[in-house]
Amino acid sequence: MQYPPAEPGMREEDVETPALVLDLDAFEHNLDTMAGALIPTGVRLRAHAKTHKSAVVANAQILRGAIGQCVQKVGEAEILAWGGVRNILVSNEVVGPKKLARLMALSRIADVAVCVDDEAQIVAAEAAAEAAGRRLTVLVEIDVGAGRCGVTPGPEAVALATRIADSPHLIFGGLQAYHGSAQHIRDPEARVAAIASASEDSRRTVEQLRQRGLDCPIVGGAGTGTFALEAGSGVYTEIQAGSYAFMDADYARNASPPPFRHALFVLATVMSRAVPGVAVVDAGHKAIPTDSGYPLVWERPGLAYVGASDEHGKITIGDGAAPALGEKLRLVPGHCDPTVDRFDWYVGVRKGRVECLWPIGARGMMA
Amino acid sequence: MQYPPAEPGMREEDVETPALVLDLDAFEHNLDTMAGALIPTGVRLRAHAKTHKSAVVANAQILRGAIGQCVQKVGEAEILAWGGVRNILVSNEVVGPKKLARLMALSRIADVAVCVDDEAQIVAAEAAAEAAGRRLTVLVEIDVGAGRCGVTPGPEAVALATRIADSPHLIFGGLQAYHGSAQHIRDPEARVAAIASASEDSRRTVEQLRQRGLDCPIVGGAGTGTFALEAGSGVYTEIQAGSYAFMDADYARNASPPPFRHALFVLATVMSRAVPGVAVVDAGHKAIPTDSGYPLVWERPGLAYVGASDEHGKITIGDGAAPALGEKLRLVPGHCDPTVDRFDWYVGVRKGRVECLWPIGARGMMA
Repeated sequence: MQYPPAEPGMREEDVETPALVLDLDAFEHNLDTMAGALIPTGVRLRAHAKTHKSAVVANAQILRGAIGQCVQKVGEAEILAWGGVRNILVSNEVVGPKKLARLMALSRIADVAVCVDDEAQIVAAEAAAEAAGRRLTVLVEIDVGAGRCGVTPGPEAVALATRIADSPHLIFGGLQAYHGSAQHIRDPEARVAAIASASEDSRRTVEQLRQRGLDCPIVGGAGTGTFALEAGSGVYTEIQAGSYAFMDADYARNASPPPFRHALFVLATVMSRAVPGVAVVDAGHKAIPTDSGYPLVWERPGLAYVGASDEHGKITIGDGAAPALGEKLRLVPGHCDPTVDRFDWYVGVRKGRVECLWPIGARGMMA
Repeated sequence: MQYPPAEPGMREEDVETPALVLDLDAFEHNLDTMAGALIPTGVRLRAHAKTHKSAVVANAQILRGAIGQCVQKVGEAEILAWGGVRNILVSNEVVGPKKLARLMALSRIADVAVCVDDEAQIVAAEAAAEAAGRRLTVLVEIDVGAGRCGVTPGPEAVALATRIADSPHLIFGGLQAYHGSAQHIRDPEARVAAIASASEDSRRTVEQLRQRGLDCPIVGGAGTGTFALEAGSGVYTEIQAGSYAFMDADYARNASPPPFRHALFVLATVMSRAVPGVAVVDAGHKAIPTDSGYPLVWERPGLAYVGASDEHGKITIGDGAAPALGEKLRLVPGHCDPTVDRFDWYVGVRKGRVECLWPIGARGMMA
């Protein structure tokens, strides 16, 4: 585990780098903004822990009205449940008897649910639940446009739901209908069209299930890029946004960016000024993954992060004050989720001072 | 920390996923091949731990003749020194008094050296060494073509070396002359030209230092893509290759790939087959970073890894047998270094059976 990079009371510029800095004012603003946006819709927030990987953040979201959390991995569910989170949906398929056994063990301290998109997964879930002597809630994932996981909406989904409902140790929990790729569509009209289609797929499937006597307590999906659309659809009951708590550079590039502030930064130190026109910082792509583009340099016009190697970030110096050797810069990650997963600690900062350190307990929990 | 994903004696197909699998036969072949290639040149191997992040691997390299290790970060140096490695070069600038103090503390149990490319770094290193009551070996980094860190070869480097030699608690250790970007040049002739230029820059600087009465015990550089060129240059004394131990898909794409075998794999499970023509595995870019391209699917013709999201890898199914739900696939990482940094354990495998688990102690040690 990484050393704690700071102590409460310290000035931000004294934090050891690279460090993951959470601006607490912006973070709380984001939680309040999402809660406020959802109240008039009546749709619940089940925030996604794949972004934050921390029971501390999960509990802050729940304190502000989130009904629980989503995760992608059993290991993430464990960290949350051990940290007091009581309502967890694995918004993903879980394949393998050991992982299912861990999920059943966890069901003794939290309400857990899982998704399927194949009959074999239902058979395995039933066996795991029976072996544990418990019942497990199972959702059917439908493919509403991402082309990744999920069965075709309609009769295929109804067949799986019926199979779940007919399994003595399983409870049919509803539909998982997440359109991941729509989150990052730059054109607002195309985003609207994608979610309209996803909502119609979901609505049709819900209706067909109802005709078979099967209710959908959960119709879940949506991320930070589209949540208002799903929330207004009349069919989704739960919003699974994660990035809204932090915001990243990629979401900010959308033509109509969501109303959240940048709250998450990688603090980096200028470690070389030897090459003219270049500042090198100690955060390369091991610290700030570049799968959604390079980070932005925060509130330093003229500085552009233009290249990442494993341990070095290359910043070009345009007009304006050049950074000094040893100076610390805030970088806005291109993509929050993999960036958070590189750190063991959030350094919570308010008005330039370190207020708290929070462990990122689910960092690296991929199994 | 991640759960150990396996136990010795287990079959590889029973390992929990995603897991980092090390094929021990191929790994040992690679270590022997590098040792054999360097013997006739008389050039030493100081293998780079930024790739493997593990004292166990470092000690295996040293057992086969490596004289020590390189690292990029003080935290990596600590993990190696605590694991018995006695000779460590931080092939990078270390900026900040706390990091320098940690390096000096470490100098009590290992021979450590560090690089500089600025006079202010020399002043800080002298202060840290004086405060510790010890002497520290310092190399001057020169920019031989990468345009990242390092002063211009020639008089600028000589000025810094003189400043080091004049500092009472510092020892001038030589030159760091790594041409990082040359490692990945696809055209063999262009690679040769890049290293010829780097070697000439280094030779000229060594000569100017000699005229000032300053010897260079170390002239270090080279990676897996070019090591034979530096080893044959007559000026480099140490080779800093890291990836040779594992090999990755990016190095294999070179027109003249180096003579090493793929030894490192991410083992992944097929977790969804719901979308026609697609298999989804449980290793996305959080498990297998894509900064140097997507992974290859090992010994499964017709399967192509074509898309990575955070926790999902999308594989298209061409002609040939389609993988079953639950089947495990070996993926060859595009880039070893950041991939290793995502795992806490190597699962050492020989002929289909797990032989050992090795901790990746320096995972995430970025400070």
